Amino acid sequence: MNVPSPSAPDKLLFTPGPLTTSAGVKQAMLHDAGSWHFDFNTRVRWVRDELLRIADLSPADGWEAVLLQGSGTYGVESVFATCVPPAGKVCVLANGAYGERMVLMLEHLRIPHAVVRSPEDELPDLSLLEQTLSADPAITHVAAVHCETTTGVLNPIYEIGRVVKRHCCLFVVDAMSSFGAIPVDIESAGIDFLISSANKCLEGVPGFCFVLARRDVLLANEAHARSLSLSLADQLRGFDRNGQFRYTPPTHVLLAFEQALKELEQEGGVAARERRYRHNHFVLVEGMKRIGFRPFLPPSVQSCIITAFYYPAAAQFEFSGFYQRLSEKGFIIYPGKISRADTFRIANIGHLFETDIRRLLLAVGEVVQEMGIESISAGETPASLSQTNAVHTQILK
Amino acid sequence: MNVPSPSAPDKLLFTPGPLTTSAGVKQAMLHDAGSWHFDFNTRVRWVRDELLRIADLSPADGWEAVLLQGSGTYGVESVFATCVPPAGKVCVLANGAYGERMVLMLEHLRIPHAVVRSPEDELPDLSLLEQTLSADPAITHVAAVHCETTTGVLNPIYEIGRVVKRHCCLFVVDAMSSFGAIPVDIESAGIDFLISSANKCLEGVPGFCFVLARRDVLLANEAHARSLSLSLADQLRGFDRNGQFRYTPPTHVLLAFEQALKELEQEGGVAARERRYRHNHFVLVEGMKRIGFRPFLPPSVQSCIITAFYYPAAAQFEFSGFYQRLSEKGFIIYPGKISRADTFRIANIGHLFETDIRRLLLAVGEVVQEMGIESISAGETPASLSQTNAVHTQILK
Repeated sequence: MNVPSPSAPDKLLFTPGPLTTSAGVKQAMLHDAGSWHFDFNTRVRWVRDELLRIADLSPADGWEAVLLQGSGTYGVESVFATCVPPAGKVCVLANGAYGERMVLMLEHLRIPHAVVRSPEDELPDLSLLEQTLSADPAITHVAAVHCETTTGVLNPIYEIGRVVKRHCCLFVVDAMSSFGAIPVDIESAGIDFLISSANKCLEGVPGFCFVLARRDVLLANEAHARSLSLSLADQLRGFDRNGQFRYTPPTHVLLAFEQALKELEQEGGVAARERRYRHNHFVLVEGMKRIGFRPFLPPSVQSCIITAFYYPAAAQFEFSGFYQRLSEKGFIIYPGKISRADTFRIANIGHLFETDIRRLLLAVGEVVQEMGIESISAGETPASLSQTNAVHTQILK
Repeated sequence: MNVPSPSAPDKLLFTPGPLTTSAGVKQAMLHDAGSWHFDFNTRVRWVRDELLRIADLSPADGWEAVLLQGSGTYGVESVFATCVPPAGKVCVLANGAYGERMVLMLEHLRIPHAVVRSPEDELPDLSLLEQTLSADPAITHVAAVHCETTTGVLNPIYEIGRVVKRHCCLFVVDAMSSFGAIPVDIESAGIDFLISSANKCLEGVPGFCFVLARRDVLLANEAHARSLSLSLADQLRGFDRNGQFRYTPPTHVLLAFEQALKELEQEGGVAARERRYRHNHFVLVEGMKRIGFRPFLPPSVQSCIITAFYYPAAAQFEFSGFYQRLSEKGFIIYPGKISRADTFRIANIGHLFETDIRRLLLAVGEVVQEMGIESISAGETPASLSQTNAVHTQILK
């Protein structure tokens, strides 16, 4: 039985969630709470209110924060399963794996849908969206991903929202890895359903997700929910009834999240968190460039959450060795997910600070040396240079 | 903001999950693990293997343990959503809230179904099941709950299985609050899908559930899965592919579960756990009877997991005051869920030992005195006496 000891020191997670959390967040899990107990219900209520406060949404305007057991993907599917009427049709804007995952959900749920696809290294094609919505009045919902962690691209959520609202559709936004760090005026952006997760920029641990939506919109199609577990409307009714999750919640994860929200406030709220992440990102990218790595995306569309870097051109480089050596030094990075380029990814969210980024950069430099890579020059071979330039031109045009 | 401090000492949970867990289980959550990392994958693999070992099922015979994010309810729904073919029909045996929940799931999933209902205080009617299956050859699956925590009744899983197999149906068993403490020979009982959860008798914390099933049976209808998040087949394919959960798992909860399984082994395995729970249950029921409380079920059908007690006949008794006073003394009990009798419930699973039960009993005695209840005599008023006798007669006949 060769199971690693849990008492070994934790490696730092440069991944887009689960992420490195504070000691306080983890210590909050040292308590067993009764999910039926009023103490726990008070905490659930506080967390729901706090999420609305962070999002600058008012309960008086009908906004609700509904927590749902499971990963963020469950939250996105719960919106489709609960809130699209039988005669509804969803248009998905896809420029990465998370957009494509929405398409898969709709296929499984047998919900009619259209897809407006763009390459992973481009922003969504808004004129194609406009055309699609004009040509197909059956479309009732448009779904998009705010920060596509496939590449780290930040999609233009306000511009998309304007097109969606011009066509009187409902707007579903997967804000998994942006909420809490990239401020969005949800009402101005025309967002009807925003989905995010406990273990992203709010720096909790994984175990539940949440959906922000207006009560009437959320309940409008409750009779048609396609799943019981994923029925957001029934989940809201449960909270209405007695302040409780309908089914056993991850109590420890909820306690950790409560602590994480307190720490967000202590840090100075979303604005301060964004500043820290932007600084982390800046230090990371500058440092990686100095070593010779080249980011996949141009700065204009790059989020401050996660960055994809091209593999070095050097023959000595292979990702699994690179990953393994960094892991041995105490740093976990993330593989690439881009179909048409060889990349790896480094996220800079979680309980990470400039000093952690600098330690990672030091380790990357060492690993490059250990692997005998003399010149990294990622993207400087003629082929990848032209590819990179092409990408830049497409995005910046 | 009147949120209770998380540093207050934990109350003991006499509830059927979430439950009181050991310090070791909670401390295992003090680590952030990368869900993509090989260390974590090794742990996931170990947990899946260990679940099969505990269940005495062999991977060589095609058995798989599939972990799924979410509460136990998600696990039950995932089986229906993934494994019932479009032309399938499910017969649910319902004698409590969890059987009824299965019916709700099937309604949401638009899966044809039949229900064989029995009163909450009776065992399932096997001759009615026999008739139903004979009369309706469209039925492909039979679903039952092993331990119905509504009442604490232990349903006769082998007898049900024999009827199911005689009619060549697949047998789905919700073993949420029995697996790990009430040994079942899954193959002899004819069980095709067994669902349980991390935070029940295995004494982990809540956040995921698991399904034990034969690989070929589990994958047989994967093309027809009605949900992506709840697709057990796709989840298994994910584990096949790279040892990982498809979507972000509750990493801390998984680490806690790994520790919980090690502690189960240290305790002496399922047999030892059953002994402890049986003893807890015996001490509880004897003590409660001495105080004057009367269990709802006769011993012959009562599980050793959770016990429903009648409210005392005394006018001074009201549940919320009783609950609140016990809570102030550090003990969380559970409300009743039985529709035709006023009961409350006390579970005796989790990291609880005889000394904890005796402390609870002491507190119950004190609360009864504080509430000014001179004679409890539950069920000894003429009305409830006759009700109780009727119940006993029905079950024992």
